[in-house]
Order: sequence, then structure tokens, then C-alpha cells
Amino acid sequence: MTLSIEVEATHGPARATTITTARGTVTTPCFMPVGTRGTVRAVETEDLERLGAQIVLGNTYHLLFRPGPGTVERLGGIHGFADWSGHVLTDSGGYQVFSLSPKVDDDGVTFRSTYDGDEYRLTPEGAVAVQTALGADIQMVLDQCPPLPSPDPVVREAVERTALWAARARRAFVDLGADDRYQFGIVQGGVDAAMRVESAQRTTDIGFEGYGIGGLSVGEDRDAMLAALAATIAHLPEDRPRYLMGVGDPVGIVEAIALGVDLFDCVLPTRFGRHGTILSSEGRFNIKNRRFADDAGPLDPMCPCRVCQRYSRAYLRHLANVHEPTAARLSTLHNLAWTLRLTERAREAVRDGTLESVRTEMRALYD
Amino acid sequence: MTLSIEVEATHGPARATTITTARGTVTTPCFMPVGTRGTVRAVETEDLERLGAQIVLGNTYHLLFRPGPGTVERLGGIHGFADWSGHVLTDSGGYQVFSLSPKVDDDGVTFRSTYDGDEYRLTPEGAVAVQTALGADIQMVLDQCPPLPSPDPVVREAVERTALWAARARRAFVDLGADDRYQFGIVQGGVDAAMRVESAQRTTDIGFEGYGIGGLSVGEDRDAMLAALAATIAHLPEDRPRYLMGVGDPVGIVEAIALGVDLFDCVLPTRFGRHGTILSSEGRFNIKNRRFADDAGPLDPMCPCRVCQRYSRAYLRHLANVHEPTAARLSTLHNLAWTLRLTERAREAVRDGTLESVRTEMRALYD
Repeated sequence: MTLSIEVEATHGPARATTITTARGTVTTPCFMPVGTRGTVRAVETEDLERLGAQIVLGNTYHLLFRPGPGTVERLGGIHGFADWSGHVLTDSGGYQVFSLSPKVDDDGVTFRSTYDGDEYRLTPEGAVAVQTALGADIQMVLDQCPPLPSPDPVVREAVERTALWAARARRAFVDLGADDRYQFGIVQGGVDAAMRVESAQRTTDIGFEGYGIGGLSVGEDRDAMLAALAATIAHLPEDRPRYLMGVGDPVGIVEAIALGVDLFDCVLPTRFGRHGTILSSEGRFNIKNRRFADDAGPLDPMCPCRVCQRYSRAYLRHLANVHEPTAARLSTLHNLAWTLRLTERAREAVRDGTLESVRTEMRALYD
Repeated sequence: MTLSIEVEATHGPARATTITTARGTVTTPCFMPVGTRGTVRAVETEDLERLGAQIVLGNTYHLLFRPGPGTVERLGGIHGFADWSGHVLTDSGGYQVFSLSPKVDDDGVTFRSTYDGDEYRLTPEGAVAVQTALGADIQMVLDQCPPLPSPDPVVREAVERTALWAARARRAFVDLGADDRYQFGIVQGGVDAAMRVESAQRTTDIGFEGYGIGGLSVGEDRDAMLAALAATIAHLPEDRPRYLMGVGDPVGIVEAIALGVDLFDCVLPTRFGRHGTILSSEGRFNIKNRRFADDAGPLDPMCPCRVCQRYSRAYLRHLANVHEPTAARLSTLHNLAWTLRLTERAREAVRDGTLESVRTEMRALYD
């Protein structure tokens, strides 16, 4: 079946939608936890179900090497492998590959694996094949994502190559004839509005089930990011999901929602959790701090999550300070619950016309 | 209220009982997971509830330094600190301290902490005070536990000092006037039957709510251990629980149950789990092995635990091989479920008169 999106409420460019796929429905704005190696680090599938996560992101780069797409495919794709019945979105692997100083040409990219040191090649068609083996509901095209700041010619090259590769990836995907899988193109263009517009137009001209906005949150300041984001979204169709790649901090999420973004992914809540950094309605803090030694209160007094309902700051501080793996898990669960709840609050605020107060609150707490 | 024990069924010396305390009831034979630092490593309180654990052991030595007994006491003891409403049994800290080459005299033991390198002193009365602050339902006396083999004079000294300290610990405990807490004495004596008998008599002469059998599984072979255990149990009262300290391998558990042991603790199932070593009805194996790469079956086809109902060997192998903390947690959960179920099976077998077949099965699988 075709991916469809019903826009249920808007508030300026911001929107609350329901996306329907062959897998089921997803309400947006939606934060997607990052399940790097077949699970979200430090938590298990049951935890994600209890959190109400709707989409989990899988990292193609990591699964390509361990356990390999063949194994994942034989075991039923990521869904069967991890026994996850929600949506799976996979990246193309390109983001990790481009961080390894690869050799890039118009055909694809050659890199040395961090797993075995051997040379590998990733092409737009290859990224489609791997993501198909992984069983993703939503695949991302292979793109070229330069860091910021980058000289204009570098950003230009990324826009050109991303468009070239997107057309090839789309052909490879269409050739699969899968009517229960979907593919998102990616818009590049750095923080240059004109290049963003051009990249958006070229990507939408090819035509995908949804659009990723890539190449942001890679070194630029937030105002520049939001300006580039606004320029991009103005040239994306309203009847397709918009996914801001790699953004998951509280202010970034609400500001991007205000500009019309539907989907987010980021390792921030989970990575923070593993290091004891807690997201809360009182701002961000590290649970290892001595001031929590005798604190019988929850991580966040406003948070309805299971961790906050049950365990004290003092207990979680102790577990973190003696390096109990349970500390990483419980802090990760809280941070994910907190971030998922933030997108739910934003969804309600779009419906109620109160998004501005959520933005003000997040800026006050986290800026 | 007084601790009471109802012997519901016997099969030779083996018994199935229900222990009743101010906290509630415990059915035996019972395996107690080791909650070293305020949680069982890699799992959380909710996991222990779902496993049906009845008693969790807390390590006094570790909690003494992190977070300290004062903090635990202010937060409601281990029960309040970890939000655990089952039974808590604490060791005296002596076992860890004696592994640090301490200076021992008749009054107590002086050692350098592995946490801060400073010198500390532990006495029989001090161990009672710390365990009281930790809020244990059942305290263990400070004893002297020599490794095996040890020369006779070393074992003799341990028997003498353990008896001397037990009397002091009992006085300190009785002085508390707590009618909802209990204290177990500990029998030493190495593998010498006569010394075991003497230690058992001297310990029971003092009189405790239950008896630990210490100084076993510390280097001797299993036959010698079981002979010493049998000699000890013959001189312990039938109306008190018997706790074999530090034994938790499948054969050790069933053989000791056959001799009349009620309670067990051991880090084996949890430590094994963290290293990928799996207890199963097919024997012991390491899940990281290449042969499980595509194995869609559960860890143990006979195991009803949540992990076996949900995740495949291939998935758990992958998580272990990429060092996901979730691998340690899920393997630990399975091993604990498996060990708890073994004691439940033994309990049923005592009632049914079929304990011999469980012993035969475990010896065939694990010897």
C-alpha cells in the first residue's frame, strides 16, 4: 500500500499528522530512538514497546558488518531479529562512511571498515540492497553529507552527488516492486538557502514517499540551521513526511516542529543517559553529582515515566557512580520517555495552538 | 515476630519448607540472587520481581563504601533504596575483607579498602550495626573463612574465632531488640568432619534464627564439600533454615538440597550471564559461539522464561558480540530464571519423591 499522511492540525507551518503505511500508523511529531546495532543501546525491545516508541532507526553501517545483512535477512529482518513489530527506518550507512575519510567518486564511496580494516564500497544501489535485506519499512537514500562550515564548492558537490545518487537509488528501489516499503530522499545544501531550495526541488522532482533534511546539526549554529530548515521545508510537498536527520535536543526539536518537521532521530537522549546526563523539566543535570546523594525524589518530578515513578535520584546516582549497567539503562529509559513525551506535548500544542509556550519553556530550560 | 519454618515435605534429609518472617514468606529450597551494590548486576528491581526472586543478598562490604550505610539507612534501607519489597539478606562483609590479606586479631579485622585505600576495622558488633543500617531482614554474623586447602591450625583458628565472634555478634544483635529482624550464625570447620561438628554445636549453642554453612566451595572438590556439608547438617536443628553460602552451580545446588540445605546464594548465574555463558537443559554453552550465528531458537527450548519466549540465540549472540549491555542483562535474566526454576523443580521433586532424577539429570548435564 501507498504511504499516506493525514494532516490533522496545523499551527503556522507546524503540523500534527498521522502517517499510514503497510506496517501501521505513526502519529507525528515523532521522535525515533536510534537502535544502532539491532537494539537501542542499553535497552531491549520490550522497553521500546513500553515507552510507546513508534519507529526505531537502524544503522545500516553497523549491521552491515555485525551480524551482516544476510543473517538479519534470514532471521526476518530487523523486525524478526529483534522481535520488534513497530516501524523500522534505516539510514543508508553514508553518514558513518563519510566520517571515515573515504574515497568518493560519482559512482559511490570506498572506505575502510572500522570492524575489520578491509576496504568496502557503498553505492546508491548497494545501500538499497542492504536496507532491503534489513527489512526496513523506510529506507534512506545514500547521500553526501559535508560537515559545516564547508566551502561552497564542497556543498555544491554534495548537492550534485546527492541528486545523482538519489535518482539511481530511486530506480533501484522501484525495481524491487515492494508495495510495503518506502524510500525517502534527502535534501542537502548546507546553510545556503538557494542551494537548499535547489536540492529540495531536485529531490522532489525524483519523487519519494518522504523527505529527509540532511546536512544540518553538523557544526552550524542553531539560527543558521533553522533558516536552512525553513528554506527547505517551503519547497517540500505537504503530503509527504519530513524528517530532520540527527536532531534530538529539546530546543532543536520544538523549533523544528514549529517549522513543520514531522520526524526526528538522534542519539542525544540515549548517549546522555549512558553518561548520567538527565533531561528534565528542571533542565539538564548529571545524576552523578554529589548533591543528589541523599535525594529521595525522582529524576524529574513532572515525569510520568516508569523510572521516575519508582527510583530515587539517590539510588540512580549510586548505581551510576559504581558503574552498574542498570544506571545506563534506567537513565536511557527516562531520557527516551522524556523526549517522546516532548514530541507528544508538541503534538497536543499544535492542536491547541499553544506551541509557542512549549518553545518558550524549552528555550528557558535548555538554551 | 519470630522466624518460623514449616517443613512441608521431606525426602531423606531433603526438605521443602516455608519460612515465615515479619517480611512475609519464603518457600524453599530457595536461590538468592546476589545484589552486590544495591542491585543485581545488569538487572533492576522490577526484573527480580518478575523472576519471582524471594530473597536478594546484599554485600555489606560494597555498600559500606558506596554509598555508605548512612545514605542507605536514610533512604529506607536496601528495601527503600532499591524499592524492593521482598526479603533482604546481607552478608557480614567478612568474606570480601578476608580476601584483602587483612590483619586479624581476636577483636576484629583491619583492612585496606579497595575503594579508597584507607584502613578500616570490622568487628562482630560493627558488622551488626552496618547490617542494621542497611535494613536487612536477615543478617549474617562476622566469621573467619579460610580458603581450602588450609593447614589444620588455620581451620581450627577460624572455628575458634568464628565462635568467639558469633557470641559477641549475637549479644549486639539481641541488644537491638528488633523483633522483625533475624540473625544467622555461621558454621566453619573446613572439610574436617570433627571440626564441622564442633563448630555446628558451638554455633547452635549460642542460638540463632538460622544457620549459614560457610567455608565451603572455596577450593575443595565436590565430594569433600558434600561430606563436610552432611556432617554439619546432622548437627543443625530441624526447625531452623540452613543456608549454604556461595554455592550456586546446578550440581552443587541439587546435591546440597539432597542433604537438607534450604537456601543458596552465588554469583555464578549472574557472572556467567555477563560473560555469555548460558545455563540450559542442554548443559552449559557460550552464546558468543559462531555456531549460533543463524540459530533462530531460544537459549533453552525447555525454559519458560521471558528471554527464551522472545529472543533467539542468533540475536543474543549478536548483542553479546557487539558488547551491547542488553546482552549481559538478558543472559543474566535467563540464567537467574533457570536457576530459580531449578530450585522450584527440586522443591516439587522433594514433594514427589523424584529428587534422584533431578540429581541424575544435573550430573549428566553439568559434571
